[in-house]
Amino acid sequence: MTINSKITERIDALRKAMESKGIDAYIVPSSDPHISEYPADYWKTRSWISGFTGSAGTIAVTKNKAGLWTDSRYFLQAIEELEGSGIELFKEGVSKTPSLEQWLTDELPQESTIGIDAQVFSCTEADKLSAFFIKRNLRVENNCPLFDQVWTDRPPLPESKIFALSDSTTGACAKDKIEKVRNAMRHEGTDTTLIAALDTIAWLYNIRGNDVAFNPVTVAYALVNETQSILFINKKKLTEETSNYLSSQDILVLDYHKVEEYLQNNLAEKKVLIAPAKINLSLRNKLPKSCQVTEVATHPADLLKSIKNETEIKGFRNAMKKDGVALVRFLMWLENSLEKNEAVSEIDISHKLKELRSKQADFFGESFGSIVGYGPHGAIVHYSANEKSNAKIEKQGLLLIDSGGQYYDGTTDITRTLVLGKIDDQMKIDYSLVLKGHIALAMAQFPQGTKGVQLDILARQFMWINGINYLHGTGHGVGHFLNVHEGPQSIRMDLNPIALEPGMVNSNEPALYRDNKYGIRIENLIVVRHASSGDYGNFYRFETLTLCPIDTKAIHKALLTEDEIDWLNNYHKTVYATLAPLLTEEENKWLKNKTNEF
Amino acid sequence: MTINSKITERIDALRKAMESKGIDAYIVPSSDPHISEYPADYWKTRSWISGFTGSAGTIAVTKNKAGLWTDSRYFLQAIEELEGSGIELFKEGVSKTPSLEQWLTDELPQESTIGIDAQVFSCTEADKLSAFFIKRNLRVENNCPLFDQVWTDRPPLPESKIFALSDSTTGACAKDKIEKVRNAMRHEGTDTTLIAALDTIAWLYNIRGNDVAFNPVTVAYALVNETQSILFINKKKLTEETSNYLSSQDILVLDYHKVEEYLQNNLAEKKVLIAPAKINLSLRNKLPKSCQVTEVATHPADLLKSIKNETEIKGFRNAMKKDGVALVRFLMWLENSLEKNEAVSEIDISHKLKELRSKQADFFGESFGSIVGYGPHGAIVHYSANEKSNAKIEKQGLLLIDSGGQYYDGTTDITRTLVLGKIDDQMKIDYSLVLKGHIALAMAQFPQGTKGVQLDILARQFMWINGINYLHGTGHGVGHFLNVHEGPQSIRMDLNPIALEPGMVNSNEPALYRDNKYGIRIENLIVVRHASSGDYGNFYRFETLTLCPIDTKAIHKALLTEDEIDWLNNYHKTVYATLAPLLTEEENKWLKNKTNEF
Repeated sequence: MTINSKITERIDALRKAMESKGIDAYIVPSSDPHISEYPADYWKTRSWISGFTGSAGTIAVTKNKAGLWTDSRYFLQAIEELEGSGIELFKEGVSKTPSLEQWLTDELPQESTIGIDAQVFSCTEADKLSAFFIKRNLRVENNCPLFDQVWTDRPPLPESKIFALSDSTTGACAKDKIEKVRNAMRHEGTDTTLIAALDTIAWLYNIRGNDVAFNPVTVAYALVNETQSILFINKKKLTEETSNYLSSQDILVLDYHKVEEYLQNNLAEKKVLIAPAKINLSLRNKLPKSCQVTEVATHPADLLKSIKNETEIKGFRNAMKKDGVALVRFLMWLENSLEKNEAVSEIDISHKLKELRSKQADFFGESFGSIVGYGPHGAIVHYSANEKSNAKIEKQGLLLIDSGGQYYDGTTDITRTLVLGKIDDQMKIDYSLVLKGHIALAMAQFPQGTKGVQLDILARQFMWINGINYLHGTGHGVGHFLNVHEGPQSIRMDLNPIALEPGMVNSNEPALYRDNKYGIRIENLIVVRHASSGDYGNFYRFETLTLCPIDTKAIHKALLTEDEIDWLNNYHKTVYATLAPLLTEEENKWLKNKTNEF
Repeated sequence: MTINSKITERIDALRKAMESKGIDAYIVPSSDPHISEYPADYWKTRSWISGFTGSAGTIAVTKNKAGLWTDSRYFLQAIEELEGSGIELFKEGVSKTPSLEQWLTDELPQESTIGIDAQVFSCTEADKLSAFFIKRNLRVENNCPLFDQVWTDRPPLPESKIFALSDSTTGACAKDKIEKVRNAMRHEGTDTTLIAALDTIAWLYNIRGNDVAFNPVTVAYALVNETQSILFINKKKLTEETSNYLSSQDILVLDYHKVEEYLQNNLAEKKVLIAPAKINLSLRNKLPKSCQVTEVATHPADLLKSIKNETEIKGFRNAMKKDGVALVRFLMWLENSLEKNEAVSEIDISHKLKELRSKQADFFGESFGSIVGYGPHGAIVHYSANEKSNAKIEKQGLLLIDSGGQYYDGTTDITRTLVLGKIDDQMKIDYSLVLKGHIALAMAQFPQGTKGVQLDILARQFMWINGINYLHGTGHGVGHFLNVHEGPQSIRMDLNPIALEPGMVNSNEPALYRDNKYGIRIENLIVVRHASSGDYGNFYRFETLTLCPIDTKAIHKALLTEDEIDWLNNYHKTVYATLAPLLTEEENKWLKNKTNEF
């Protein structure tokens, strides 16, 4: 077995730092002080210390052992990347795998001290750890930021310039949004609120940045009280224009690193509203003892952000047109390339998608790393092709492509599963079950107050009857030129208490995976709209936003009802009618053919 | 306006008692020390003090005002019954109705004291009240049992004899059940558990009683620790036989009134498991300070109780046969009576149903008060005919009948909506929507871990598409020769976290109500069964237990799919095949006709 000396040296250095602080074990999570899905390089401590680059995973290091906990999406990748590191892989969700907490309890003598850096743990996570370990006679020391000392060539904090969005893009100026947050704050009996979530800050102040991959956000904190709204940010990121914009919205700019000092010195006796799942523990620890803290599961700003206004929805519709044009061009390119027997790989497809999207107006970047899974790779939910795995696309089987773009007027996220040649009956049945689920959710109507968990079965019911299921959510919220995954609502098997409100944009992505064979997923974005009001109250429905043909070659027509076929034909009519004026004659002809009555 | 001097005198007496205790307001709930749905007469303090006899409602009395809070089921009844009492009706669920808590806050000066009797409040309810009032600078005094002093002719506590069920009925002896509870207790890190819920005690010790209406339970408490299982009960309720039975199961009998004393003197240093929603506050207050109390949302015994074993399921099937025979006889009687133009009223129907059920073997009583709602009365969800409202049944429109029986081998609960003559198209459409929902739930298949809230939409989806909804649950748990409403699972719009497990018996009762016109509800009992196991895990389905034809006259056939018609025909085939051998030739012929292929 080879030894990965780079990693073992780093772990040794960490152990020395632990020892000097009197720490018996150290936990390294994936998150940053903003509890982000995609942290900036500066906070990729878990990747640095372990070599494991997956998006989800936690490391625990004791004096003589180290372990990584990650889920099934990353088992293969983790095995490869951990080789020679001495770090043991613990497969989450596999029976008999001890939890990280249980493993530490078993490894450590009583009264040991476990160190964490309170800056990169949400209060919720940190509270859970403390509650667990205190019962086992282990102590958690929160104030252990060891990486500054250990990671000597740590990358700098990002310093990309921010930019402001105009009201014609956002539909509401920052001042008005801040006023709404103040109202919600008062409603909870509080006078101050602190926000660390980067997308929430970007939404609230109508600013965007380029500090991290895929999410057009800037690293910052926000604080709103009865009279002030503050942006804690590295001032290098401002131009004269953005400084002026911020003053025009009465937003006070303070240095990013002054946030904790500010809390300590200015919040005595304040009634502070926080969402503990989205605030790091270090911030909460800095609140003066005299504060009255109100903790909420969902920050009111996140709920406000999730409910898109008509301007934002118009922006989404416009972004979908551009995305649709890029996708039509992509699908034609792929078809032609395969016809001409040109070599096309999974990575080629990712590049082509990005290239075609980037030619569209107001393109900002991808909304996430494309998932291009050919054949068996389609069954790996978060597959990301690398040089080693990169499959050559043949004229057979199924190809799953999940991709999306950030445009200044909206965010897209779409999955299509393409038929590349002859396919068997099982594939057709499976594809039809997924499509039936997709259509059932798209056609749903439901009363005010309905939560995603109540609708989720619509997308799964046809699979369930056949003893099949997919283990991810059916729908996630999508931000407006913001994070492609946002809350607080969702359409999942989990009991999320947030009701679906008109204006919320969600994905609709049922799927079916046959391990080592293929994966099928059909995803559009859908927005909640008002449908009717009557004796039984208000009812809502979905409007499908995404504009791209659904491959009909894999449909087993006898499995679809008339209503389902009607939905498909109407959807294709809309796709054609909306995109055709934006296409060349040749593209138009191609699309006409793909959207013909089924 | 007439004055109801009986009630005003009672309220005056209560106010005097309040004054003598230094109490500024007093809250009278519907519950008893066991947090029962149907309390014994001794605990019907809310009815006694107000004259309001509905099953749900809370009274608050201040020095000069009094109010009743109840929900829409009881608005009309409350208006009638409160007349002249000086008690104001507060309609829950109507916008701008202040909550009881808010009303008291508005009425009372700061630092007032609100009295409650801790014995008749669950810990959960009492904790909620305290948390609310403490923020408003009001004090809750828990230890205020005023009715012993005020209600001079208070009925005695019930003293019905208990009886034991044999293992051939229960499928598991008490000893084994107690051992399972001990295991669950240990699993929670506890060594003692206290149970106040009467149905849980009846299940655990395999005893039944007749202390309250409809629920075959006995008023008692239970305590289980590592070495003992105790039944706190009035010893007058025991015979030599039942005393012997209890000793044979190592169940120690102590006096009902000694429970609090026992807790105070025997639980020092114990680790006690309780479900605060099902334990009264007075009991928790008696736990010694040295106790380590673990509170759980669902008591493990309630989960064990809800999962019926094969003997219990067999019992249910047998009870359904008897119930089915009684119902066939009832339906024939009704048809004949109407044909012969004999006078039949809603109350006559209730009596006839009880009479016919009581002729069946091992009948114990009704499982709840029948709901017989003709025409517009069918739209009143918990309608109970009285002498004044009692409608005469005509040969037209729709008749909703919801009734059930307690048999020694099982509990039944069934609703049918009957067509009595010509009905209009809207009725047919509505009836078909309800039936489609009923069938969709009956045919569902779902993976292990699925909760009722995920399935609920199956029963509602066809109504929702038409902007219609019903505001009660689709399914409640049903006890085995026990309470017709039991938890912890449910099939509702609410986020109940309890997964549906094989063996759980639930109702399937979608409904549609047209105010002042008619109500439609179709209810069968269904039990969760294992369906399949494979690559995607375990899947479950429902087996329908109830055996009684569904009126096909109101079905708009074009609205049903082939699968739905198949389900109906198969259901009717089963009903006929199972009941026919138990019927006379004439009944057999009648049933054959009612279960003909549709």
